[in-house]
Amino acid sequence: MRFLFCGDIVGKAGRDVVTANVPRLRDQLKLDFVVANGENAAHGFGITSKICDELFDAGVDVITGGNHSWDNIDILSRADDEPRLLRPDNFQPGMPGRGVGVYETAKGLRILVVNVLGRLFMDMYDNPFTSLEKHVPGTVPAEAGFDAVLVDVHAETTSEKNAIGHLLDGRASLVVGTHTHIPTSDTRILPGGTGYQTDAGMCGDYDSVIGMEKSGSVARFLGELPRPRMAPADGEGTLAGVVVDTDPATGLAAKIQPVRLGGQLQVAWPSV
Amino acid sequence: MRFLFCGDIVGKAGRDVVTANVPRLRDQLKLDFVVANGENAAHGFGITSKICDELFDAGVDVITGGNHSWDNIDILSRADDEPRLLRPDNFQPGMPGRGVGVYETAKGLRILVVNVLGRLFMDMYDNPFTSLEKHVPGTVPAEAGFDAVLVDVHAETTSEKNAIGHLLDGRASLVVGTHTHIPTSDTRILPGGTGYQTDAGMCGDYDSVIGMEKSGSVARFLGELPRPRMAPADGEGTLAGVVVDTDPATGLAAKIQPVRLGGQLQVAWPSV
Amino acid sequence: MRFLFCGDIVGKAGRDVVTANVPRLRDQLKLDFVVANGENAAHGFGITSKICDELFDAGVDVITGGNHSWDNIDILSRADDEPRLLRPDNFQPGMPGRGVGVYETAKGLRILVVNVLGRLFMDMYDNPFTSLEKHVPGTVPAEAGFDAVLVDVHAETTSEKNAIGHLLDGRASLVVGTHTHIPTSDTRILPGGTGYQTDAGMCGDYDSVIGMEKSGSVARFLGELPRPRMAPADGEGTLAGVVVDTDPATGLAAKIQPVRLGGQLQVAWPSV
Amino acid sequence: MRFLFCGDIVGKAGRDVVTANVPRLRDQLKLDFVVANGENAAHGFGITSKICDELFDAGVDVITGGNHSWDNIDILSRADDEPRLLRPDNFQPGMPGRGVGVYETAKGLRILVVNVLGRLFMDMYDNPFTSLEKHVPGTVPAEAGFDAVLVDVHAETTSEKNAIGHLLDGRASLVVGTHTHIPTSDTRILPGGTGYQTDAGMCGDYDSVIGMEKSGSVARFLGELPRPRMAPADGEGTLAGVVVDTDPATGLAAKIQPVRLGGQLQVAWPSV
Ligand SMILES: [Fe+2]
Ligand SMILES: [Fe+2]
Ligand SMILES: [Fe+2]
Ligand SMILES: [Fe+2]
Ligand SMILES: [Fe+2]
Ligand SMILES: [Fe+2]
Ligand SMILES: [Fe+2]
Ligand SMILES: [Fe+2]
Repeated sequence: MRFLFCGDIVGKAGRDVVTANVPRLRDQLKLDFVVANGENAAHGFGITSKICDELFDAGVDVITGGNHSWDNIDILSRADDEPRLLRPDNFQPGMPGRGVGVYETAKGLRILVVNVLGRLFMDMYDNPFTSLEKHVPGTVPAEAGFDAVLVDVHAETTSEKNAIGHLLDGRASLVVGTHTHIPTSDTRILPGGTGYQTDAGMCGDYDSVIGMEKSGSVARFLGELPRPRMAPADGEGTLAGVVVDTDPATGLAAKIQPVRLGGQLQVAWPSV
Repeated sequence: MRFLFCGDIVGKAGRDVVTANVPRLRDQLKLDFVVANGENAAHGFGITSKICDELFDAGVDVITGGNHSWDNIDILSRADDEPRLLRPDNFQPGMPGRGVGVYETAKGLRILVVNVLGRLFMDMYDNPFTSLEKHVPGTVPAEAGFDAVLVDVHAETTSEKNAIGHLLDGRASLVVGTHTHIPTSDTRILPGGTGYQTDAGMCGDYDSVIGMEKSGSVARFLGELPRPRMAPADGEGTLAGVVVDTDPATGLAAKIQPVRLGGQLQVAWPSV
Repeated sequence: MRFLFCGDIVGKAGRDVVTANVPRLRDQLKLDFVVANGENAAHGFGITSKICDELFDAGVDVITGGNHSWDNIDILSRADDEPRLLRPDNFQPGMPGRGVGVYETAKGLRILVVNVLGRLFMDMYDNPFTSLEKHVPGTVPAEAGFDAVLVDVHAETTSEKNAIGHLLDGRASLVVGTHTHIPTSDTRILPGGTGYQTDAGMCGDYDSVIGMEKSGSVARFLGELPRPRMAPADGEGTLAGVVVDTDPATGLAAKIQPVRLGGQLQVAWPSV
Repeated sequence: MRFLFCGDIVGKAGRDVVTANVPRLRDQLKLDFVVANGENAAHGFGITSKICDELFDAGVDVITGGNHSWDNIDILSRADDEPRLLRPDNFQPGMPGRGVGVYETAKGLRILVVNVLGRLFMDMYDNPFTSLEKHVPGTVPAEAGFDAVLVDVHAETTSEKNAIGHLLDGRASLVVGTHTHIPTSDTRILPGGTGYQTDAGMCGDYDSVIGMEKSGSVARFLGELPRPRMAPADGEGTLAGVVVDTDPATGLAAKIQPVRLGGQLQVAWPSV
């Protein structure tokens, strides 16, 4: 099977490039499954119910999240009832929603998606390693009954993401990072067979400071007063993500390729 | 002119891939100038006088640094007297060494190199913006009498690096990040003409946790006791960096391309 | 001479206990000078022009600040023109206001007040040690022409405050910490003659989480959603600070005593 | 019943003042139980088996810990087998040792001791609120069958400690903080009946930077190279802690008083 993972969707620029491209990507790349991180979809902070529906309508099967998942309270009513919307599993206990889902495609493929938050240089969250040991099988995906296992590690540091990649090597089809909003070029298959990229990058306008309007962001670093408001940059967005082909015998990665379409970054179009 | 910047050299794997490849890169790519970040060259922490000489002998013109620059006290005797060895300009006051240098190539090209540390999620350093405003001219490089201006921003977060890129856009030939040890794929020329990549990546073994032996690093994240010692991974290294061609009229970037050679990552060889 | 330093005034509870008690303290303790930290005076965040006047009218001679100094933009118009209002000297460059002042009392006493921010576990500020070496004389206060030198170190950690106390020991009449909002009981004269207390504590309602309404604060630590708004606790406030008597020959501390009046804490009334 | 809690014992100065004073305090104050935090007892980092025995011999009934509990590997062999030695309950999973103990005195009093780490500005630990809800009964101690419930909250910030105090108010005899090494003067009984002090302070030499030799610590803040080694200050130590009398009907606090004996701080001797 082949699936696409898209990094953090930031604001309208990000939503537009995702909804414009996912339908044709599904078609041209014959994608079986699409996951996108939506923690910044609503003007940079959180997501709304309406935006979820727009993404689902465009062909996104599952939306993952991060530290900003529930920033916009509009979504809270839906958090518990929408199985296609995940937030990090190691959010504070008592938070609405769920961090793990099992999905079945039209063709009957069975996919496990797990979403965790890192802790290094981040807010106070529960232990992601406890979540991962609990939810990611200790064997190759096929042995555990999955056609694919996807893990979205929403974390600040390259070290914590690298470590989780190695920990899960041989147990997941893809371990991909999110949160830094800049794609990395270390796309590869780890020795044990897991597809890996430290950060998927964001879907949004890169003529910005990680998706937010650049002059205000620079002014904040310079300490200007009154502190400028944060708003997403509204230039042409780039869709950033990875496409993974699995080996049906194991559910591990047979091929992993970066995708970058539109906007400021150099185009990367997967070969099929 | 054309120059190469190599990211953090980590341990022997990093030194080997740099010293093995820089001579042929200088030749095949007709490089005028080579800069490499050496803060992790000595077993992951700092650099020694002998390693400096090995890098200079291999064709590295200038070595930049970061938070680990002076970790190995062997280098302290040379810190003040070696103009080709930089450490971040905004290190604590009173630190030996310098953060800025002007260099002249055999062909008479004049190049300014500036090295600063970011502060977000890092130790306590002086203000990098003060350093940058003091040392990076307010005009295009050519107007300030330079054929090229290179800025190594050694920082943890993508946001601080993005912000510095925009702040210096039109004033530097290259703003490149270091420290996270994973190359980013946002290589591009910013609207004002500055070549930019959020992180150059490391020169070292990527089958690791940011260059360090992976089982020990994973064990540290899991909290195992006694805490494993950190040592660089010793598999085949990857050279990671960027090549920039400048526009002689301005000294800004005419072309910027990623370089990745050897080891675990997909090869990127610049076109000339 | 004798002076009083009051810790961070938090909201109405803090303002009320300060304005109610400073007039009688000035009188009963024959205070020559009163300094109070006002960074949280306006509903917990910053200060307004009107609140400054209320504090000055009550007998506060100088208001110091901290990370929250300019949170309320109402005060920005006055920041540059009011010499009795200080903000940390090592705020980002370009910030309005000043971090150092020299004041003369009615009796002709000359007092230097310096306000700096610590950096450990705080936002990105300039180097406080550079500020201190620039503004605090290298001799006892009297030799530098001051009857007293007061330093407000607005910092998170006990270690950074301890270190600054020792660095300035023999050069200041008082080094006192602010920001943690809880008074410490290490009030003493350091070996070189400087009065010292790691934190002055806050002037505010202690039946709270560092001055803010307790149920909302606890809920935030528990991760409840939607995140409760922060508001100052409005029970009876405690005035918390220190009273210092100087030795006229040196300007160093001859005596230092804690003050705690009103509210939840055990009363400490200085002996005269 | 009456019990004593002593803050972090730092090095020899701390051990000496504890072993010299606890026997007479037990006697003169008719103490039923003594707890001391030992995370820095062995030259500032961790504790050894021999030091544990010295403290037990001097009349310490239970030793609690913190982030440094297992720094000295000498103790690891005993961590699992010594019920009187606690480490934080929310240490990484898989760590040896335990964070909770129930003890019975010679007179048959039953005491629960719980030790947790805070997370704000600390390393990556599990959720302390989960530990507390699991181990601290939801009722007054007497209803849960305890004569006293003691909670040592080893945390950096006053806010996290304040919040935990309020959360457990009415459920513990004492919630006391450790880790900052400076005693606070907010000793009081919270509205629900729980004795509280934000930090117990350290048992060690206060002519120091939080127990460590002061010139080296100041030099580290100034960024001097080579970085000075850390060693505990070896002047006369102060014993710092709190004494709590419980109400036998509830097990809550009837009285709470600070204790400070020896060294640089002003003496506080509990009235009985
Ligand atoms: Fe994001
Ligand atoms: Fe995020
Ligand atoms: Fe590095
Ligand atoms: Fe670094
Ligand atoms: Fe404050
Ligand atoms: Fe503050
Ligand atoms: Fe400690
Ligand atoms: Fe500690």
